[in-house]
Formats: sequence, C-alpha cells, structure tokens
Amino acid sequence: MILDQIKDPSELKQMSLQKLGVLAREIRKRIVDVVSVNGGHIAPSLGTVELTLALLSVFDPIKDRVVWDVGHQSYAWKILTGRNDRFHTLRTLGGISGFTNRDESPCDAFSTGHSSTSVSAALGIACGRDLQREDGFSIAVIGDGALTGGMSFEALNHAGHLQKNKFLVILNDNAMSISQNVGGLQKYMARMMASRPYNTLKQQIWDLSGILPDSLRRRFIIGAQKIEESMMNILVPNIIFEDLGFKYVGPIDGHDIKLLSSIMRRIRRHMIGPVLLHVVTQKGRGYVPAENDSASFHGVGPFDANSGKQACSGQEGWNQVFGKSLLSLAETNPKIVAITAAMAVGTGLAEFEKKYPRRFFDVGIAEQHAVTMAAGLASKGIRPFVAIYSTFLQRAIDQVIHDVALPRLPVVLCIDRAGFVGEDGATHHGAFDVSLLSAVPNLMILSPSTAEELDAMLRFASTYTDGPLAIRYPRGTAVCAQEELPAFEPGKARIVHEGKDIALVSDGGAMPIAQKTLEILKTAGLKPWLVDLRSLKPLDEKLLKELGESCSHIFTFETNVISGGTGSRIAQLLCSKDCRVRNFGYPDSFVPHGKISELNELIGFTPEHLAQEIQNSLKA
Amino acid sequence: MILDQIKDPSELKQMSLQKLGVLAREIRKRIVDVVSVNGGHIAPSLGTVELTLALLSVFDPIKDRVVWDVGHQSYAWKILTGRNDRFHTLRTLGGISGFTNRDESPCDAFSTGHSSTSVSAALGIACGRDLQREDGFSIAVIGDGALTGGMSFEALNHAGHLQKNKFLVILNDNAMSISQNVGGLQKYMARMMASRPYNTLKQQIWDLSGILPDSLRRRFIIGAQKIEESMMNILVPNIIFEDLGFKYVGPIDGHDIKLLSSIMRRIRRHMIGPVLLHVVTQKGRGYVPAENDSASFHGVGPFDANSGKQACSGQEGWNQVFGKSLLSLAETNPKIVAITAAMAVGTGLAEFEKKYPRRFFDVGIAEQHAVTMAAGLASKGIRPFVAIYSTFLQRAIDQVIHDVALPRLPVVLCIDRAGFVGEDGATHHGAFDVSLLSAVPNLMILSPSTAEELDAMLRFASTYTDGPLAIRYPRGTAVCAQEELPAFEPGKARIVHEGKDIALVSDGGAMPIAQKTLEILKTAGLKPWLVDLRSLKPLDEKLLKELGESCSHIFTFETNVISGGTGSRIAQLLCSKDCRVRNFGYPDSFVPHGKISELNELIGFTPEHLAQEIQNSLKA
Repeated sequence: MILDQIKDPSELKQMSLQKLGVLAREIRKRIVDVVSVNGGHIAPSLGTVELTLALLSVFDPIKDRVVWDVGHQSYAWKILTGRNDRFHTLRTLGGISGFTNRDESPCDAFSTGHSSTSVSAALGIACGRDLQREDGFSIAVIGDGALTGGMSFEALNHAGHLQKNKFLVILNDNAMSISQNVGGLQKYMARMMASRPYNTLKQQIWDLSGILPDSLRRRFIIGAQKIEESMMNILVPNIIFEDLGFKYVGPIDGHDIKLLSSIMRRIRRHMIGPVLLHVVTQKGRGYVPAENDSASFHGVGPFDANSGKQACSGQEGWNQVFGKSLLSLAETNPKIVAITAAMAVGTGLAEFEKKYPRRFFDVGIAEQHAVTMAAGLASKGIRPFVAIYSTFLQRAIDQVIHDVALPRLPVVLCIDRAGFVGEDGATHHGAFDVSLLSAVPNLMILSPSTAEELDAMLRFASTYTDGPLAIRYPRGTAVCAQEELPAFEPGKARIVHEGKDIALVSDGGAMPIAQKTLEILKTAGLKPWLVDLRSLKPLDEKLLKELGESCSHIFTFETNVISGGTGSRIAQLLCSKDCRVRNFGYPDSFVPHGKISELNELIGFTPEHLAQEIQNSLKA
Repeated sequence: MILDQIKDPSELKQMSLQKLGVLAREIRKRIVDVVSVNGGHIAPSLGTVELTLALLSVFDPIKDRVVWDVGHQSYAWKILTGRNDRFHTLRTLGGISGFTNRDESPCDAFSTGHSSTSVSAALGIACGRDLQREDGFSIAVIGDGALTGGMSFEALNHAGHLQKNKFLVILNDNAMSISQNVGGLQKYMARMMASRPYNTLKQQIWDLSGILPDSLRRRFIIGAQKIEESMMNILVPNIIFEDLGFKYVGPIDGHDIKLLSSIMRRIRRHMIGPVLLHVVTQKGRGYVPAENDSASFHGVGPFDANSGKQACSGQEGWNQVFGKSLLSLAETNPKIVAITAAMAVGTGLAEFEKKYPRRFFDVGIAEQHAVTMAAGLASKGIRPFVAIYSTFLQRAIDQVIHDVALPRLPVVLCIDRAGFVGEDGATHHGAFDVSLLSAVPNLMILSPSTAEELDAMLRFASTYTDGPLAIRYPRGTAVCAQEELPAFEPGKARIVHEGKDIALVSDGGAMPIAQKTLEILKTAGLKPWLVDLRSLKPLDEKLLKELGESCSHIFTFETNVISGGTGSRIAQLLCSKDCRVRNFGYPDSFVPHGKISELNELIGFTPEHLAQEIQNSLKA
C-alpha cells in the first residue's frame, strides 16, 4: 500500500502520475471500507479524490490555506494530511469529525459543516494574510450546489471588488448537490460546459505557454490573457464569474490529476487577481453503487461494501410521517404547497414532489429565500409548509421574524431533525431552534411526542390562519402512541401521569427520556406528575400555574439548549411562586458527534442520571 | 393642487404627461415638507417619484402586486394610494409607517423594512397567483444596494429556473445604496450602462414595434426578441441577469415618465417569462440638498426644508463613542480591522475608513458574508470588529453560531442600535439580539451602561483571545459616567447601590430607567439594591446567588424581549431559591414606530410604572 507509506503530504509533490493513480484507488477503497461501517458522506468524498491529490501536489496544506465548503468532501484530505491511522474512527464518539475542523488538524484551515461559507472564509484568510504580509494561497473549494446559497454570492461579489492576488475559488461542479440542482445558474453552467471551441482554444494557448522558457513565459501569459479576454466575449458570451471580477479557468476534468495539477501550477505561478477554476467531477466516482445513485449515496448509514446495499431501518422515520401526513392533507386542500431547500428526500417530501410537482418547490440551498418566498405565497392565500432541518433554519431567522411573524402570515415551518442528530455532530445538531424561535412574537411552536400527534398538528396547521406556526420533530424513528391520546388542542398540554408534590414537564422530543425517568422515580417511591407540553408557545399557563401551586418542585425536560429554551420560560412563569423549577436539556456548549444515545450519555441526559439529579434536588 | 384632487390611483392612467410632471413636483414637495418635520428616508423616496407614477399609470395596485424592497422608497406610493391625508403622520406613534405594510393598505403587497426580500416575496406571490389561476403582474422593485444581499441572488436564481410569466423585477439603480456600493456586481453594472450601441439598437427595435398595427405587433416582437438575444451576445457580452434566465430590458432613464410607462406597457402586453427592467434613478432627485449629498439624506431626522440643514444633536452618540474608541485602539494594535455591511457612517466607522482604508472592509449589504469573513480573518490572527445593527445581525445568526462561536474564533460583534430604535419601528427595533445570542455557546455578551464602559469593553475585547464576544449598545446619545466607575472586569457586575431585601438588576441599556426606578422606590421608603450587570453572559453568578439568598425579590430590567432574555437566565439561576424573580423588558409582541420615550410609555417600561409594579409584587 502506497497510502501506508506516506508520512507527510509533501511527498505527493515528488510522486509519479502512475503512483498517484494507484494512490487514488487506495484512498477510494479506504473511504468505502470505513464509511460502509460508520456511515458518512461517501459520494461527495469519492468525487474529490483526484482534486485533493492535485491540491496537495501543488500547494502546501499549512502555508497555503484550503477551505472545503461544507467539508463533507474532505475525507481524502483527512486521509492524506495525517489522519489515515484514525480514519476508521470517522464520525464516532471521540473519533475524527465528518467535516473539516480546526481543532482536529492544522491542515484544516476552517471549521465547516453548513454550506456556502467557504468563499467568505477564504477571502477573510486572504485579507489577513496580506495585512500581515504573509505568503501562501487562500483557496475555497465549493460545490455547484453550495453556490446557490446567497452568502456565496455575497462573497464572490466582494472578492471581485477586492481583487486579491493568490485567491483561488475552485468550483467543484458535479451538476448535483444533495438532490438535483436548482436554478438559472445551473442551466447557465451547463451552457458554459458546452462551449467547447472556446475551451479548446484556451487550452491550446495554455499548452503553448508550457513549452516556453521561464523567462518568456510570464510575458506570454499576460499577453495571452488579454487576447483571451477579448475572445471570450465573442466565443463564450456568458461568464458570470468574469462579470463579478474573477478570472475564469475551465471547465476541466476533475478526475485528470495531470491536467488538474498542471493548471493549478500555472495559476499558482502566473495568474493575478482572484481566479475561479471550474472543475467537473462525478459524485460517487470509482464506486459503482454510488456512481449509479449518487443522491442516495450523498450521506449514508452503514452499508454492505460489496453490493452497496444500505441497511433498512425498518421503522418509519419522523420525516416519513411528516411526508405522508402532508401528502394526505394536500389531497383535499389544493392550497397546500411544500417547500424544501435542497432536501426533498431528507425531509420526506419525495412522494409529494412526484404527486404534486406544481405545488412543490425545491429552491436549492437557499433557506432565506425559501422562508420569504413562503411568506409571499401565504400573502396570496396559499398555505405553504416549509420543511427545513433545525440546524439549517438558523440561516433564515431574520426572514422568520421579519417576513413571516411580523405580518402574521400563515406559513408553517416544519422543523426536521430538532435535537441531536448524532454522527454529523456539532455543526448539525438541532440544539437552538426553540431558543431562537421562542423570542419571536406571533409564532406558535408545537412539539409532537408521537407520530399521531405530528399528524394532528399538521392537520391543525393546515387550517390555522391567525399567523405562522412551527412544528419541531426529531431525527430518527418516530414514536408510535401506545394508547389513544386525547385530541390535540392548541395551547393545551397533555397530562400523561397524575402525581403529587413534584412534576416532570417535557417537550415532545424528550418525552421518551421523561417517561423512563418517571418509571425510575416511581420505583423509588415518588409520585411525580408527567406532562407532555405539546405546545411550547404558547405554554399551557393554566396547567403550569396549577402545578406551580400544588408542587414543591417542577423539572423540565427538553431537546434544546437550556438558555432561552422552554424550561426558561417555565421558570419565568413560575418564579414568583414558592415552587422550585429546575431545567434539564442540552448544555451551554457545543456537543460533538457520536450516536445520539452516546451523546445523551455524555451530557448526562439519561433517565438514570436525571432521576438521580431529581432525588438530589429534593434532598437539598 | 392636482394631488389633492386624486381620489383613486387609477386616475393616473388617463392623466396627460404634462399633468403627471406637475404631480411629480407636488409629490416631491409633500415628501420634503413632511420629512423635514418628522425625519425619514428622503433621498430614496425622492428618487422613485416618476417610477411610482409610471407603475400606477400602467399597473393596478390591487390586481397587480408591487413589492418595494426595504420599502423606504415608497413614500410617493403611499401618497398616491390613499394615504396622502395621513402622510403628515409618517413615522409618528399611531401614524403611518416609514416602510410598506400590509396592515396599512391593501395596496401594500408585502410588509418590508429589511433589505433584499422583494424578489423572494414577489416570486412567492407569482406562484400563488398561478396556483389559483388568478391574473395580474407580480413586481419587485429592488435597489442596486439591496441586490448585493445574498437572498436576492437566491431568489433571482430560483426565478430564472421557474420562468414565471408576468413576473417583473425592476432594478432601481442609483449606483449608491446607503453608503457607496460595493462589489464586482457594481462595476459590472457600470460597464453595462456604457454599452450604448446595444441599447440604442434595442430601443430602435422597440420603437419600430410601436408603429405596427396590433395584429402584427406580437409576431414582430417575438421575432425581434430572438434577433435581440443573438445580438446581445455580441454587443453586450456580460448580461448577468440573462445568464440567470431573465429577459433584460434597459438601462433606461428612471425619471422619464413617458419612457418608463411605455416600456412597462410593452412588458405588460408582450413579454414572456421573467423580465428584469433596469432603471437608472438619482437618489434625492428634485431636492437640491439631497441631490448634492444623498448619503447624508438617505435617512434623516428633522431638518430645515429650505436650506436642508439637519439639526445637530449636540451630544455624542453611542456609535460615535464606538468609532472613536476603536480608532484609538487601532493606532497601537495593527491587528485590529473594522467590518461593516453598508453602514460605515451609521455605525460610526467613517473616520476609521479614512484613516485605515486597508484595515476597513465595507462588504455591502451582506451581513452573512461580513460575519464569516471576520471568522476567516480571525483564523489568521487578525482581530476583526464587526459593527452591525442589532436588527440586521438577525441575518447572520447561523454564521455567528457556526463560523464564529463553534470554532471559538475571536471575532468582536459590535451590536449597534440594541433596544428600541424609535421611528423606524417594528422592523428595525433591536429587540431580539440577547435572546438569539444567549443561546450560543462560547460567546461572551457585554452591555455597557456608559460611554466609558463601552470604551473599556472594546479595550478588553481587543486583547481577549479565548473566543468571540458581543457588545451591545443603544441608539442615541451615549450616557456619560457621573462618577469614577470601578474598572471593567469580565463576568463581574457592578453594584451601583447597596440595599436590603429587594434588588433591581439591569442590563446597560435599561440602566437609566432602573436608576430612576430606584429613586422612586427610595422615596417610597424601600431600600433596593441596584446592580449593573455589565456582562450578560457569563452572568456574575456569585453576586446574583448572594442576592438570591439575601433578598425576597429580584427585579430584572432589560432592553430586549423577555423571552430568552437575560432576565430569563437569572430566573433559571435563582429558581431553586426562595427568592422571587420578576422580569421587566420588551413584550412578546412587535412594537410599532414612534419616539423611543413614547414606545417605552406604550409598553409600560417607565420608572413610574415599573416602581408601581414592584410595589404591587411586594404586596402580593
């Protein structure tokens, strides 16, 4: 194995092309082997193996700074920059992260996870470098999907203005973000790809420069760039990046290491001002099951490495419950539309898209636009359901406040993956949405504890016209009701267990833990109330105040940080009473990756530990 | 006065060009007269008078839907759509809003205030219209400054993809947002403006179509569009909007009512798919003082209508204190840089820009990019101070969480206009930042009560390297310390007045109110503690717990919503003690526009009312 012999990535600079080709195959095998066991973002990382090899053949991972947008395509980078021996711990508790992380390696220039941040970060790095008169390139590698995120455009626009040297944006174009790509930009890029004559000509000029002696080459290149600019205006009429102030190079084959590294070397040596290198790659490259179905293999759980067969979880996920319920509501209510930001499959809307294509909007990675467009639809009497993961809704908080809540437009925010998400870790946990949204006036927030409740809440939402509402539900298998539950009423909590003296009060996501805590406390001879809040805002103030009068202690459970969470609002409500309130939930720190059960264990959010804490509180 | 005779905007459709010209002058006078008394966004609204007249001559304000981006250029629209008789109440308590507002008039299609939302909203409206098989145009009017906001790009990209008919984006290009415009896009537009031959040719084709009989005109137009597309590729090589899937028309003179309305009429009758109409206007048009200095006249307080002389507030604003302090720190620390999102003057950074142009970054209206670029700078050892108004920081919450706090990068968020902003109203109050930011781990939040404290906190921030911190300070005149204050220490509150049994605890912004409340309570024979928190996160837990032990009641004061505010965290902290906690602050509703003192009165956030509430609590 060549891979096992590499001590330092700088060795790649001396490696023969043939050896690099063998290395690429070894890296792919390593990625498939580990991800088939641990799960992970396999298709994106298989697509960038040659790009990573070329980058490391030309640039230095410390002196130059490479920012991988999202970071889920950085597995080869991790393997080659000193983390091969730990790569089998990918995404496991205490192991290496599924994204780039500054704490993990000095080669990771920036910590990532969410989309579309790389150009901003790399531009900041380039400015910092120049202010301190340091050397080295600043490089952003961004996918075509991430390019639809508005902040990429903000950054490209600003970078075009600043005209920094040694600033390179590599557009990793696989014509496919997580779902299929969206937008005028996409069509435009496809058109650009088709402009062969221009590109052939351009390549010929570059090739020509290769045979010149160093002394002449620089002058030749400057002249050639001028000619090129003129030609481009005739032959390739639409170069959006040039409009914004970048020099555009490409498109080139992102799996041709020789071509990639020779062009990168030229850019490094000769080009002035910000450069955009357009590289075409194939998601899932080199692993047939992922090549054939790169959408399914974007991010996966464990699978069989030979067949590529992914394990079936067997039970219905919360997202599937959501998708089914919305589909059934849409059948009878033609005003219902569904909006997703590049997550049609993940949010459970694939069926909806098939059945109601005219009433389904995938806006691309563009959460801000998704929410405000929903407000526009609602202003025309349509009932939009916007399905966004909790962690990505963080991108659209201002739009929720300003465009939805302030004008009281009946938009329904369906917040998927609220609470811990597990292996994707700190960047992706849905730990903040309740705090962010509880501050917003006019917004109702619901939290189902069972699949049946989620269905009932969606049904309610489809007819509620007084303003917006949000429904948050976890990642993973949905909980089914064990008994017939009282019908859902807005603003009303559900008493699960009647008790005396102390009360446990829980949001929907924490109900399984609250219920087990109840059992332990009962065994210990206590008689707690157990209340399922259902509505986080407004709270069932009547019931909570009654409990505040009759109980000495109230303990709140939630799958959100405690600061600004539902427990804090209950504490506020009851702080003028004799009753003592203690909040349990996520801590005031970023929680790493690992299985959800391991993370709950890590932070002490387990029935055993909480029961103990409650008993300690009662003794105090 | 023609203006006074207009009963319905549809009358404009029959009005002669000459009469429309007179009307434009009357409207300008009305705007200057009212804004010189009430203050407001005068330059933007003076620039769009003809555009408004043309829109109302061609389109219907109810059947067609016009979304004014930001809405601060809609004064003529308000005057002409039934609000002339109330226009003198502009921005006053109970009067009409300084932005468009659905609650104010059925002619306001969408409520606005923040930048860059219009294309998303108008696209949603177009989709809603088509789903319900309704008719009418959906129109977004967006400034060139607002175009740099990423969500505009998200929306343009999506709109290019959807190819809706009767969807018009009017780019109101005045080559100037609030400060000077930023970006590659800006240069590109200037280049486009220069492409006269193309535009002349184009205009000739349009003119030609005008002389044809109706029966032929449509076929001619379709043919001409095809020819035009081919020509454009040769003559105007860089049409970014065409790349994104729009038909581009322009640039045309935005003060020529005849031209504007004839082109709009053609677009309405003939053009297919999304259209971008590029209109060039002059900010402040028709009022010499504003024409000469449109930046100062962007948004103003009262001024002398004849001379244009703006009243001087006399005392130093919080923003000026900030600007001066940062400038002085920058003198000795070359690592300090300042970042603003199109608010160099508003945030007090004008001097900094002049003195340190290389260390100053105006990124345009692009808050997301501003924060993540700061993280990139910090990752290279630079110390970025990002000055953003509280209300606009709502746009960058995910970037604060994901790019700054998670990797603990020492970015300093300088949050200007925290608390009520007054006349700009509900869309602009800084009422949520504490709730949004308190949920974020690793982030310190400071709140000065005096100019001296702000200076000390900035000084501290310039040397603090353990992670990011935020400093929030109000709009308006800074409070000066009346006495020598104890030095600022992170995490330490300041005891302002020692007391017994009850305590008042305040953030910096509410200190003037807390202090007066103290005086009233003292007069009533009570002996409250008064504590200036200084650090909102972390809280001075030691002091607060001691107060929790020794006091029966603690009352918290803050200039933020109560939900998730600092008071809620104090309630959480002390909820296991016998002490009762009551939180005072902003209510769980959107507060309208008016003077800050009037708004405090409106919500009962006055010393008199709070002292009464405290006495009631003590009796209960």
